[in-house]
Amino acid sequence: MPTGIITLTTDFGLSDHYVGVVKGVILRFHPEARIVDVCHDVEPYDVLGAGFILAASYQYFPPQTVHLVVVDPGVGTPRRPILVEADQWLFLAPDNGVLELVYRRHPHRVRSLRAERFALQPISNTFQARDIFAPAAGLLSRGEPVDQMGEPIEDFQRLPIPSPLPVGPGGLRGQVLRVDRFGNLITNFRPEQLAGPFLLTVGRARVQALRFAYADAPPGEIFAIAGSSGYIEISMNQSSAARAAGVEAGSVVEVA
Amino acid sequence: MPTGIITLTTDFGLSDHYVGVVKGVILRFHPEARIVDVCHDVEPYDVLGAGFILAASYQYFPPQTVHLVVVDPGVGTPRRPILVEADQWLFLAPDNGVLELVYRRHPHRVRSLRAERFALQPISNTFQARDIFAPAAGLLSRGEPVDQMGEPIEDFQRLPIPSPLPVGPGGLRGQVLRVDRFGNLITNFRPEQLAGPFLLTVGRARVQALRFAYADAPPGEIFAIAGSSGYIEISMNQSSAARAAGVEAGSVVEVA
Amino acid sequence: MPTGIITLTTDFGLSDHYVGVVKGVILRFHPEARIVDVCHDVEPYDVLGAGFILAASYQYFPPQTVHLVVVDPGVGTPRRPILVEADQWLFLAPDNGVLELVYRRHPHRVRSLRAERFALQPISNTFQARDIFAPAAGLLSRGEPVDQMGEPIEDFQRLPIPSPLPVGPGGLRGQVLRVDRFGNLITNFRPEQLAGPFLLTVGRARVQALRFAYADAPPGEIFAIAGSSGYIEISMNQSSAARAAGVEAGSVVEVA
Repeated sequence: MPTGIITLTTDFGLSDHYVGVVKGVILRFHPEARIVDVCHDVEPYDVLGAGFILAASYQYFPPQTVHLVVVDPGVGTPRRPILVEADQWLFLAPDNGVLELVYRRHPHRVRSLRAERFALQPISNTFQARDIFAPAAGLLSRGEPVDQMGEPIEDFQRLPIPSPLPVGPGGLRGQVLRVDRFGNLITNFRPEQLAGPFLLTVGRARVQALRFAYADAPPGEIFAIAGSSGYIEISMNQSSAARAAGVEAGSVVEVA
Repeated sequence: MPTGIITLTTDFGLSDHYVGVVKGVILRFHPEARIVDVCHDVEPYDVLGAGFILAASYQYFPPQTVHLVVVDPGVGTPRRPILVEADQWLFLAPDNGVLELVYRRHPHRVRSLRAERFALQPISNTFQARDIFAPAAGLLSRGEPVDQMGEPIEDFQRLPIPSPLPVGPGGLRGQVLRVDRFGNLITNFRPEQLAGPFLLTVGRARVQALRFAYADAPPGEIFAIAGSSGYIEISMNQSSAARAAGVEAGSVVEVA
Repeated sequence: MPTGIITLTTDFGLSDHYVGVVKGVILRFHPEARIVDVCHDVEPYDVLGAGFILAASYQYFPPQTVHLVVVDPGVGTPRRPILVEADQWLFLAPDNGVLELVYRRHPHRVRSLRAERFALQPISNTFQARDIFAPAAGLLSRGEPVDQMGEPIEDFQRLPIPSPLPVGPGGLRGQVLRVDRFGNLITNFRPEQLAGPFLLTVGRARVQALRFAYADAPPGEIFAIAGSSGYIEISMNQSSAARAAGVEAGSVVEVA
């Protein structure tokens, strides 16, 4: 039983017509579709960033939700548009690894979309979200069977995701994956990697405190906290840790 | 009869996964909910700013709309999540005074949410919009009775809101509450406080004209106008009064 | 048979309460309306810019969609609020030429809205999107007959739109209409105006290549491409042509 819910995660921004066009085409194919914006402010072409935003949100949506993710540096090349079934959800994306975190978490079946069956014609070389993905999302959200939409494939694209690596005696070197609006640094450390006393350094900051709530920290303290996405975050109470530490996405995080 | 409409006003921004996650959880609890974004660009931690945006919009929505407001510097502390009935609407928010303008306008009943009944478990210390408020909004929007959601309380938090104060002989000193996208200065003066001839000073600007439409003003004039939110605004015709006067939110406004 | 779909294109931004208020009023008039944001980041007062965003998106929506466009430098003056029937769609806008591209593409009937029949009272001088256009959109989206909404008029406003002009022997001089989020320059050249070998200059850039997909271009090349909106765009592969050429909206584009 489809719910008609479709989520959108793109790097289209909100200043152009791109998001509106995608929604219009979805509604042409399924006028009852219910479209939910997850994020359109992914850094342009940042496949890993889109993957993290998706991975932090898809599992909160009802079963049968169709998650459409379009960050597509290879638009117009032969990279395939794919449809993935994983756990309770369906995913539509270009085959560029943006679904890597979904693949790691769940058994999954990947299909290459049979775009010629349903795409808007002619298929544009620059805007396949409109011509291929929006029609596919509309059809799936109204219950079109997945096996009508594409053929299973095995050779889909994977994406290496950095994990913290051993460094020195007992140390680990990881990185900042994302900086959010509040200046929190989302690292690639898992909470279990900060067990026991630790000294974490990132940019100018030296962090030794692990807090359970932002408000537990005294003003000015930079602390570690198990963030809501399952990774260690480096934060301050009502202030920007990114600014205080002088770091950005990609910066090195070392734990000793 | 619930309408299923839920509005969102937060400081989450649109560059992260936070808004998407809240929507997903709402839809899990009530797949037919109809979610309307009011604003996610409240200045981080700006409780008064969120209160003003809410106060300028909630009364335009249909009766039984659930208004969810999350600007929550105290997340993770014992501050309570509350549910407020006022006039035709329901409000969900942290108990930090963000609903002050609602309290001033209407008789109201405030309840402390019985979060353990419906929250996602474990309740995160950093993201209670996801774990407590989104489930509550979903339940209320599908008609859950308010007395099942929490116990009435009396000692809820109030928020002092600045009013213009007398200064000198017959003068008033107020302030700029907000600067909007068009550079209009929303002050805390009420239209009746500018009756008769006046001289208003704010930053570099001296204002003596009261206009009834932006387009009535000659180019370059800075004028006062009764804004759509019920306060006096300082504006220019197709130009930014904020830039011309060199002021920002919090700047002093004097009327003689 | 109305679909209940209403799209919004405005210069209201997302940092204030304006968009939320418009949605609230629409839902008061038609609680089942389904509101789709096309764009709220039109440059303030940029009537032509709003017209282009609308023109690039409206035709992708289902028949009977109500397209509401509010970029309104003349709010509060006697300029009329209008309702336009064109092809399969309905349009609501101030009569300032923002629908020029719709007029050029389709036979159309323009009506002056009989606002006194349905507007919120008193009609504000500063926020007619709330008081006139939102009620009208709600009513139309639930099937109110257009002839109940206003009287046909003939003297509606047109908007001159620049076309490339001949310059020198066989040359054309046009301009950059918009720069999108990816730094693509959307020009006012039609693809047929770049037939055969050409030399296009814009800012610091000299362009001779016409590509069919972004990914066909070698890194660093600035190329022309037939964009998804029907105009020639000047682009780079995963980089900003606007930054590389040092140009912005309004810059001259010459083709020899």
